[in-house]
Amino acid sequence: MRIYNYEILNEIQKRWSPRAFSEESVSNEDLEAIMEAARYAPSCFNEQPWLYLVADDEPSLNVMRELLMEKNWLWAKKAPVLIMVLCKNKFEHNDKDNAYCSFDTGTSWGYLSLEATKRGYQTHAMAGFRKKTAREVLNIPEVYTPLAMIALGRPGLIEDLPEAFREKESPNTRKPLNEVMVKIDYFGGLNEEN
Amino acid sequence: MRIYNYEILNEIQKRWSPRAFSEESVSNEDLEAIMEAARYAPSCFNEQPWLYLVADDEPSLNVMRELLMEKNWLWAKKAPVLIMVLCKNKFEHNDKDNAYCSFDTGTSWGYLSLEATKRGYQTHAMAGFRKKTAREVLNIPEVYTPLAMIALGRPGLIEDLPEAFREKESPNTRKPLNEVMVKIDYFGGLNEEN
Repeated sequence: MRIYNYEILNEIQKRWSPRAFSEESVSNEDLEAIMEAARYAPSCFNEQPWLYLVADDEPSLNVMRELLMEKNWLWAKKAPVLIMVLCKNKFEHNDKDNAYCSFDTGTSWGYLSLEATKRGYQTHAMAGFRKKTAREVLNIPEVYTPLAMIALGRPGLIEDLPEAFREKESPNTRKPLNEVMVKIDYFGGLNEEN
Repeated sequence: MRIYNYEILNEIQKRWSPRAFSEESVSNEDLEAIMEAARYAPSCFNEQPWLYLVADDEPSLNVMRELLMEKNWLWAKKAPVLIMVLCKNKFEHNDKDNAYCSFDTGTSWGYLSLEATKRGYQTHAMAGFRKKTAREVLNIPEVYTPLAMIALGRPGLIEDLPEAFREKESPNTRKPLNEVMVKIDYFGGLNEEN
């Protein structure tokens, strides 16, 4: 159970990462709107390093499903859309390493998740997929780093989940505020008079 | 000028990264609500690797300001709150490298930015600050990686900005959809019959 102390954005309150997906497809309009939200994330030098590789038909979905680790495959195979999130690890303007590509792409995925929630969809990001194999199978150039796989779709029925997942099917909790928001002297940054 | 094709989340539409900040302080309630939004981001193994180091009084703000590169210092020094975003680069449960700490913390910062927007604040994330010096000055342990500095506050007056920044003070644009959302055969992933 999540208890919110403040009236934070409705979509943030409602979002979590379920495993029970309906097979109902995602409309093109919704998919494009969700991607539009992802596009408007901020990024270092407005580089927009994110790249979303979208599978929403059977042949493409099969390619993606094959890449999932079994513990994800068991439930994510039902999702009507699987999206591989990559980031371009060099800057366009000077071809130097972009140390922020992962951070900025995380922001973009965050916006994606909230727009999906707003439209009645659910998302679940997975780290567990074969990134090296993905690179080979999809001929992904070195300049793109595969980061995550996202399952996107409408909520499904818990009863349809493999049994092992059913009892985990609820929003998880968070660390208390004082463990993530700290004042500057936390690490001993200000001298003792302060 | 930004043109949205879809009715995406209002806070995503409205958010951009201004440089003109008012010196008006941020209430504790708003700060905690904004941080609550940041806390509810998803993360790998629900690790919540983010850490927000908050400066909202003069001594702390001075420490943060000193760390900014001059091009950021020139405008960000007026912001009533400066937040250093760090991530814990090892997992709690096994002390192994967390390859997702930057990505997940980017998601968390994304939620932070939208809750701030909802409450009438503006945010501007900066990569340009002295991370090595930050580590020394603030005694940041190796296990935390400094990622970004965020300016948070109410909108200020463009006229108060140093002249060089005034003409840049508007939302920037984005790559077209087809450059960031691509089908799976983009890199040659499916064989030719598909």
